Amino acid sequence: MPVVVPLAEIKKALASVDPLPLIEEGFVAYSRGLAVVPPVGELLFEDPPGDVHIKYGYIRGGDVYVVKIASGFVDNPKRGLPSGDGLMLVFDRSTGALRAVLLDEGHLTNLRTAVAGAVVAKYLAPRRVTAAGIVGAGVQGRMQLEWLRRVRAFDEAIVWGLDEAELAAFSRDMASTGLRIRTTLRAEDVAAAANLIVTCTPSTRPLLEAAWIRPGTHITAVGSDTSEKQELEAAILARADRVVVDSLSQSELRGEVYKAVSAGAIGRGSLVELGRVIDDPGLRRASEDEITVADLTGVAVQDIKISEAVWRAVGEP
Amino acid sequence: MPVVVPLAEIKKALASVDPLPLIEEGFVAYSRGLAVVPPVGELLFEDPPGDVHIKYGYIRGGDVYVVKIASGFVDNPKRGLPSGDGLMLVFDRSTGALRAVLLDEGHLTNLRTAVAGAVVAKYLAPRRVTAAGIVGAGVQGRMQLEWLRRVRAFDEAIVWGLDEAELAAFSRDMASTGLRIRTTLRAEDVAAAANLIVTCTPSTRPLLEAAWIRPGTHITAVGSDTSEKQELEAAILARADRVVVDSLSQSELRGEVYKAVSAGAIGRGSLVELGRVIDDPGLRRASEDEITVADLTGVAVQDIKISEAVWRAVGEP
Repeated sequence: MPVVVPLAEIKKALASVDPLPLIEEGFVAYSRGLAVVPPVGELLFEDPPGDVHIKYGYIRGGDVYVVKIASGFVDNPKRGLPSGDGLMLVFDRSTGALRAVLLDEGHLTNLRTAVAGAVVAKYLAPRRVTAAGIVGAGVQGRMQLEWLRRVRAFDEAIVWGLDEAELAAFSRDMASTGLRIRTTLRAEDVAAAANLIVTCTPSTRPLLEAAWIRPGTHITAVGSDTSEKQELEAAILARADRVVVDSLSQSELRGEVYKAVSAGAIGRGSLVELGRVIDDPGLRRASEDEITVADLTGVAVQDIKISEAVWRAVGEP
Repeated sequence: MPVVVPLAEIKKALASVDPLPLIEEGFVAYSRGLAVVPPVGELLFEDPPGDVHIKYGYIRGGDVYVVKIASGFVDNPKRGLPSGDGLMLVFDRSTGALRAVLLDEGHLTNLRTAVAGAVVAKYLAPRRVTAAGIVGAGVQGRMQLEWLRRVRAFDEAIVWGLDEAELAAFSRDMASTGLRIRTTLRAEDVAAAANLIVTCTPSTRPLLEAAWIRPGTHITAVGSDTSEKQELEAAILARADRVVVDSLSQSELRGEVYKAVSAGAIGRGSLVELGRVIDDPGLRRASEDEITVADLTGVAVQDIKISEAVWRAVGEP
């Protein structure tokens, strides 16, 4: 029988796990061709709108394969429900036996996404961060802000959200971090104040414009993971000195890069995969003045790494 | 919280479910274009050999979407383990909330596959069955034999297996059915005695040859669900009066039809989908002399139908 782990126990187990080096290892393995990660499975719904992603695979030489299912239904909050749900499944690679059902309700997906934001910032953000900028005042915005502090020192954050109520809740929840939180309904303000920006919304139209972006800014876009979603004007990618993706193959079908390439704003020739940036110092930010962009669509290696670690921390039933 | 249902409770719940009409409805919905079933997700392993299939989707207008994961690791029995494992997941179609984790250990996949064999036989087998033939003396062979009796009357079965021990176990297990069970190590004997044959092995080389097949025989091949596996000589499909598939799109990449088309033995023009055969009496067996073949690779609609029914029978937690 597999161990079935509810969210509260997953959170307890995470106390003994440092996901940052794990997620780094995952990206490196992926870009070195050591991971078997088939194309993302996807279901898209229109009424009510929602998307479901199935990400799965294994790392060669490892003990497990993992299947992760995560959904986002943007109208859920109107019904008093969280927008995300999901679970991760850990299987024995040599027998197919199901080892663990991690009922993470989307938390591990949120976590590995926030950690990926920190990994990106570690290698691409300017050394001196004046303020962190968050576009999207949801759960992911909160988590990104916390994880960015692992890799860069900053005292101030500016946060864009859809309405004052959402922003007030964000400020309240983040008060305990000791950060000075400024909020705004104009995304332009984020670009004016912050030089390390993360966008984390389910938007299907650009929220940040190229004209607003100052030299020396790094932007990580984590919200767009389908062919419909987009957070950055394509001209931002065209203007950037470096455009990094978590997965070259996934960027052919989804995310900011897909949108920018489809619009003819950029070619694919200069794209670099995150695992290579981690591996090769020559591919990282070269000066404090560069504009850098990372487009994260979320790769199964992140799910494999985080769920295997949680399973091991929980132990056998 | 989702309801987590172990195999014993799934079996109890099945007592109040008749899967045959459900599976029929599923195939009909699928062939009418009412089901959203993306391409099968697949992981193939070499050492030890195994395959994992992820089948998922929903029926338009329904309340749920379903993700099913099933594995087959052929060397497991050498280690005292069943070759198959897996689970089915039922989600709310309008919120993405996980409703049920059915820890079926592959049983529901086995069941919906056996039921599909019965659905096929209902429409394509000769009216008078002299003996049922089973190629492959495993769990699926046992279940096929039981389900075939739902749709055709017969007293005798002839079963091919890999060795005498396997066949003795099969005969012992099936004694309570009242069927006369003959066993053989020569697949030719099955073709000589039976006019309703089901092949259910993980073989990667043909087990039945065209020269052995007598007029008036129906064969359902359920074992081959990858691009590697094959149970029927391609010439059998070429000789058949009708070749039916559960999924035209899946048959482009996997199963007997994939093998026969790749070998140039048949074209795709005359293939008919099972849901259409159920819908249209003109597409069924036209005489007792026809040779008919059905190639089943397993379609997510079967998983959707069976898991939704089990979830409803179990009830909310």
